[in-house]
Amino acid sequence: MKIGFVGLGAMGAAIAKNLIDAGHDVQVFNRSPARAEPLREAGASVASSPAQVALGADAVFTMVADDAAHAAVTFGEQGIATTLKPGALHISMSTISVATAQDHAAKYREAGLAFVSAPVFGRPDAAAARKLFIMAAGAHEHLKVAVPLLETLGQSVGIVGEDPSQANLVKLIGNFMLSVIIETLGEACAVAGKAGIDPMRLVELLTSANFNAPPYKIYGPLIASQQFQPPGFSLPLGQKDNRLMLAAAEALGVPLPLASLVHDRFLTLRSQGLGAEHDWSAVALCALSDAGLSNALHGG
Amino acid sequence: MKIGFVGLGAMGAAIAKNLIDAGHDVQVFNRSPARAEPLREAGASVASSPAQVALGADAVFTMVADDAAHAAVTFGEQGIATTLKPGALHISMSTISVATAQDHAAKYREAGLAFVSAPVFGRPDAAAARKLFIMAAGAHEHLKVAVPLLETLGQSVGIVGEDPSQANLVKLIGNFMLSVIIETLGEACAVAGKAGIDPMRLVELLTSANFNAPPYKIYGPLIASQQFQPPGFSLPLGQKDNRLMLAAAEALGVPLPLASLVHDRFLTLRSQGLGAEHDWSAVALCALSDAGLSNALHGG
Amino acid sequence: MKIGFVGLGAMGAAIAKNLIDAGHDVQVFNRSPARAEPLREAGASVASSPAQVALGADAVFTMVADDAAHAAVTFGEQGIATTLKPGALHISMSTISVATAQDHAAKYREAGLAFVSAPVFGRPDAAAARKLFIMAAGAHEHLKVAVPLLETLGQSVGIVGEDPSQANLVKLIGNFMLSVIIETLGEACAVAGKAGIDPMRLVELLTSANFNAPPYKIYGPLIASQQFQPPGFSLPLGQKDNRLMLAAAEALGVPLPLASLVHDRFLTLRSQGLGAEHDWSAVALCALSDAGLSNALHGG
Amino acid sequence: MKIGFVGLGAMGAAIAKNLIDAGHDVQVFNRSPARAEPLREAGASVASSPAQVALGADAVFTMVADDAAHAAVTFGEQGIATTLKPGALHISMSTISVATAQDHAAKYREAGLAFVSAPVFGRPDAAAARKLFIMAAGAHEHLKVAVPLLETLGQSVGIVGEDPSQANLVKLIGNFMLSVIIETLGEACAVAGKAGIDPMRLVELLTSANFNAPPYKIYGPLIASQQFQPPGFSLPLGQKDNRLMLAAAEALGVPLPLASLVHDRFLTLRSQGLGAEHDWSAVALCALSDAGLSNALHGG
Repeated sequence: MKIGFVGLGAMGAAIAKNLIDAGHDVQVFNRSPARAEPLREAGASVASSPAQVALGADAVFTMVADDAAHAAVTFGEQGIATTLKPGALHISMSTISVATAQDHAAKYREAGLAFVSAPVFGRPDAAAARKLFIMAAGAHEHLKVAVPLLETLGQSVGIVGEDPSQANLVKLIGNFMLSVIIETLGEACAVAGKAGIDPMRLVELLTSANFNAPPYKIYGPLIASQQFQPPGFSLPLGQKDNRLMLAAAEALGVPLPLASLVHDRFLTLRSQGLGAEHDWSAVALCALSDAGLSNALHGG
Repeated sequence: MKIGFVGLGAMGAAIAKNLIDAGHDVQVFNRSPARAEPLREAGASVASSPAQVALGADAVFTMVADDAAHAAVTFGEQGIATTLKPGALHISMSTISVATAQDHAAKYREAGLAFVSAPVFGRPDAAAARKLFIMAAGAHEHLKVAVPLLETLGQSVGIVGEDPSQANLVKLIGNFMLSVIIETLGEACAVAGKAGIDPMRLVELLTSANFNAPPYKIYGPLIASQQFQPPGFSLPLGQKDNRLMLAAAEALGVPLPLASLVHDRFLTLRSQGLGAEHDWSAVALCALSDAGLSNALHGG
Repeated sequence: MKIGFVGLGAMGAAIAKNLIDAGHDVQVFNRSPARAEPLREAGASVASSPAQVALGADAVFTMVADDAAHAAVTFGEQGIATTLKPGALHISMSTISVATAQDHAAKYREAGLAFVSAPVFGRPDAAAARKLFIMAAGAHEHLKVAVPLLETLGQSVGIVGEDPSQANLVKLIGNFMLSVIIETLGEACAVAGKAGIDPMRLVELLTSANFNAPPYKIYGPLIASQQFQPPGFSLPLGQKDNRLMLAAAEALGVPLPLASLVHDRFLTLRSQGLGAEHDWSAVALCALSDAGLSNALHGG
Repeated sequence: MKIGFVGLGAMGAAIAKNLIDAGHDVQVFNRSPARAEPLREAGASVASSPAQVALGADAVFTMVADDAAHAAVTFGEQGIATTLKPGALHISMSTISVATAQDHAAKYREAGLAFVSAPVFGRPDAAAARKLFIMAAGAHEHLKVAVPLLETLGQSVGIVGEDPSQANLVKLIGNFMLSVIIETLGEACAVAGKAGIDPMRLVELLTSANFNAPPYKIYGPLIASQQFQPPGFSLPLGQKDNRLMLAAAEALGVPLPLASLVHDRFLTLRSQGLGAEHDWSAVALCALSDAGLSNALHGG
């Protein structure tokens, strides 16, 4: 297939590489062109704009950082929507807001263009290893094309529904649930540490018992050892997703006290000077610090 | 081995049965004697007091409902401590407070008696199937005897440390983490429901992705379908454990905002008339109800 | 003085009336013209646009509902900024966001126009009785003109500083503090009610002791008697101010757990169907309802 | 009247002095006898036990630190209850738990003894100046005697009801409301400080407007200037009252999210090493510190 790919961050580059390796004819674009070079070496052609990527493509993937970038590559002057052909598919894998996804879907519907939202769970190593969990939503006929493609990029594709923005909501719910796991582990390690139980031992005990899901296994040791650098998923990105979740919940009229708590944790961390160089699991630092188990915060 | 077993609730009865089946010479006691009959039929002898159970036993297990029951069967007039022989072992599987476990350990140490704390994760069906996750703590020499016994009762035995009360703390931490999962699922299902995504579908999607640990798989469907009866682990018992966790954390000087939130949820539910006939996963009802998705609370 | 007044809601109309009574030459504008009639009878002339109001005025007051209305009457096609003369003063009494006030200040500075922000504490009856508490901020030379005018409209004028948006922040802080008083009274009345103490008696006791400030005296009886209609300050307006406070705090990097709690209360109420016909003190219903003392929520 | 007084801390000593000055025949007792000397000089006789104080007294006041002290001076071997005569009155001004007051009332009822609970709002200087706000509860016939006495000790006496423990609950509710004011001022000053508004100026503006009750005027400047030493009402005493409030609310089935938040603040402070030498208004340090405006916490 003739495939376009816009957005070559750590996640996007790994996914684009897998599409090349799967034998597709891939054309890529990234705002800062240097990041396109490894893909060119792997066999991709490099375009000079999202519009050029979309021109003649059967499917265009986007994997960009936020709502503004998504809007720019899609509806900007040189955006995908300016050249995408009616039969072709725009598959958005970015974590964007529900409102932006709804807006995108409405505009494409009006223009007769096809849009599938397919955000993912997993870090860059999971993307490279085709181990992503993918949530997909869109019209039946569009999913029929998108799902087989997506299945080559992850270990499972869950169909959320026909409204593309619902996949974005499920993604935000998932990240919300991860953020609560991080906070939980922070509080749990604080109790253990104060009681003379090595937090790392606590995490081993719990993840060897019924808390054996990947988030506990991944974040548990990071939090127990207070290893928050380098970032796997950075603090500002985590904060952004928390904000998007709260905005979506507010629009729906749903109070989320857990998300409100995590929201306040993010603000505390930013006020203490933590930022893009920290992993979002640093949220756990607040509980550890309040218990007197860390002086990474508050001038320590 | 000559084994005593005190406390034949749903959990205790299943475990005692497994000890009989493993070929041990088991003597049991339960406050209300009717619950001892099925064990008698399975081959146990039935004692008339904890003291009688302990007399001549190599190891005595206790699995009782709360601190008061634990104190009564151990230090009461006809308690285990009155007859337990110095070389024998008292293995407590009950979820009791850290303070009570510390007190127990101190008294036994003074009296030259052996005490291992070995609380468990798992519901009665897991106990019957020897699938419990067991947390054990005690002196090295006592664990050498206890662990092989415990290994026949569950799928894993985690050694927490030498201070028996630390196993109780890890158990409370685990139940605290479960309570947060319940609250999280309540909030997640509230968002999904208001957005037109079937909560049951949300749970399937998430547990098929990275939220694939047993607590999400067990509680997710119960919460998505608002099925809170009959109880697997009852609301008052969950509230008791939350109270024990907050007490332990307060003694250690650790703020636990997540446990405080769940504490408030329990009070809301009790004020709405929910009680022992409900599963503790009904904690999720608060988030669902606040979002307008249930009228099981507040006079509905 | 030649004075313009834009925005004749309950608050604006009372203030405009006082300006007329003070002998000023007042010209008014309101989007729905019917509300201007009583002012015309009181001696005002009625303009057909904010621009007409500002034309030739020495000072223009605005008192409108929200940021959008403020932007429209100021920077819209027929807005104040199109005709305001350089020496004249724009005094904004509306509760608007810090960001909007900052934006306004910057644009006026660039255009050489004078802007004073002067939001108020007090309900319409206080406005009519010249009992408002007014917070004013702006450049020294502008305050020299504005403060004597404002002093005729309330019982005190507090000077916040030279940056107009700081007066808006103080106003939002004040409303935030009021919202916490409402939540506090809800929780206090819930405890009293469950203990057999008449909540109204509790309020009398407390406001006769050291809780003798107006907010306790005003909101206490409303909450104790669960009288949330008709609205003095409506639920949606209260929710809007809570949102503005959280946005301002987020921009400053300040976690506000109390505002987050109140935020969640507003969402609960909206999901239960409460709205513009309720006073914002209905926030207290959540605590009362969770304690089982009201079935106004959740399907009652 | 022949009056006994037990408990000569800063509050008790001031009140006892006022009773002497009013012309009563006062006999005092304090556990550490040195504190009784100034009262002896003022005209009191000094007893060697609470029992001796009560012997022959018409009324005995108690003002002690906590539940344990209250139980000891009342029901201990040399306690008041051993010698109090049936017609005489025990007036407890201590801040004790609802449960302890209920227990006391029940025992006295059974023994035919008279008990009035009369806890107070106000610091030692208010006690000395007879400016206390007193909450009184007890049987009609007992209040008839107690209230005229109490009226000489404060600026107002509020009658709560016939059940003495209700006065203790109102006192706890009052302290709960004060603790929320402290947290509120901490959050408000954090926002102001980050926005470049001097927190002291903010407090002046607010207390000159509608937040003009004593708690705002007393705590506002302390918090704005981060002056938490020496203590007027110490951190551990504030924490104790928070604990009593949460216990009373739990017994009544009332969730108090505000009290839960303050509970967590107290734990944070204790874990950072703050204690009896700090005023309880240091609760506000948490909000200030989380916003990056203090490094008094977390190793600063």
